[in-house]
Amino acid sequence: MRPVDLAHAYRLLNHGPTVLVGSQHAGRSNVMAAAWAMPLDFDTPKIAVVIDKATLTRELIDASGVLSINVPCVAQREQVVAAGTLSGKAHADKLARCGLVTHPAPQTGAPLVEGCTAQLECRVLPATQHVAGPHDLILAEVLGAWADERVFSHGRWHFENAPAALRSLHHVAGGHFYATGEPVA
Amino acid sequence: MRPVDLAHAYRLLNHGPTVLVGSQHAGRSNVMAAAWAMPLDFDTPKIAVVIDKATLTRELIDASGVLSINVPCVAQREQVVAAGTLSGKAHADKLARCGLVTHPAPQTGAPLVEGCTAQLECRVLPATQHVAGPHDLILAEVLGAWADERVFSHGRWHFENAPAALRSLHHVAGGHFYATGEPVA
Repeated sequence: MRPVDLAHAYRLLNHGPTVLVGSQHAGRSNVMAAAWAMPLDFDTPKIAVVIDKATLTRELIDASGVLSINVPCVAQREQVVAAGTLSGKAHADKLARCGLVTHPAPQTGAPLVEGCTAQLECRVLPATQHVAGPHDLILAEVLGAWADERVFSHGRWHFENAPAALRSLHHVAGGHFYATGEPVA
Repeated sequence: MRPVDLAHAYRLLNHGPTVLVGSQHAGRSNVMAAAWAMPLDFDTPKIAVVIDKATLTRELIDASGVLSINVPCVAQREQVVAAGTLSGKAHADKLARCGLVTHPAPQTGAPLVEGCTAQLECRVLPATQHVAGPHDLILAEVLGAWADERVFSHGRWHFENAPAALRSLHHVAGGHFYATGEPVA
């Protein structure tokens, strides 16, 4: 993983991949899958993500004010399905059950998911207070970003030059995904 | 185009495609490209989309309170690039220049873009007032949805059974796109 210029961080999400959301507070950490995430601004970089109020992830984000957004790849499909299915509230060992390994992001301590092709650490923005209640929407500033240089370098994805297992996942419904496809010239 | 059950409308955007945003007010209409759009809720269905305050699209949405979200396909790449490059403020004939044809949505009059594989007509939600200023973010309820049955039926995308030209576009940067790829089993 290599650091990504913050001015290019939006590009890690611009193609609309399904993501893994990392959260932690007071020694408890969690990872869940989310298809509803997008860039919100270029520079300073910001993101928006929908996180159901009923989830442990939401509790941890509300308590800590920080989160991570990670872009999983085709090789991680089973972990993504597990992270979107198992509840962190019901399973204290959810990460182990899902086969997910994380390490803390340097500025926020939010768990970054290993094996993902991109990772962003983020801090919740004040405007979230107006939309998190009625619409489960979290707005956050991106403080740090990293990407797997086999598929993202010089500010660009280049999936076509890498193993197909490193392509992003795009969830449609019920555990069915499309991989990111071919470049359109 | 066939009507889509509103409970399935979120699936039209769940895979993260780049969209065309339609707007109209007082006889003026516009279409712009946007990569930052996502579902916000299942039922009632809602969406979130980032629309720069400097755009004609934003002026028209702010004035009318309605918009459309359309999912273009690979065959429309050139129109999408044009719609993302030309300013509606600078070009009163932007739609003609972009080769885009629209018709008004039944409930809102928002222009639906022909040739797209999915179309949603939407009404702006009250919470938008808190996030449209600081973050250019529009939240809207989906009132009607349609999809091209060659690629979406029974609540599911099935790109793999249709011509490649009907796949969705995922913008990365600078007019470069990936098409939606293969199903991941």
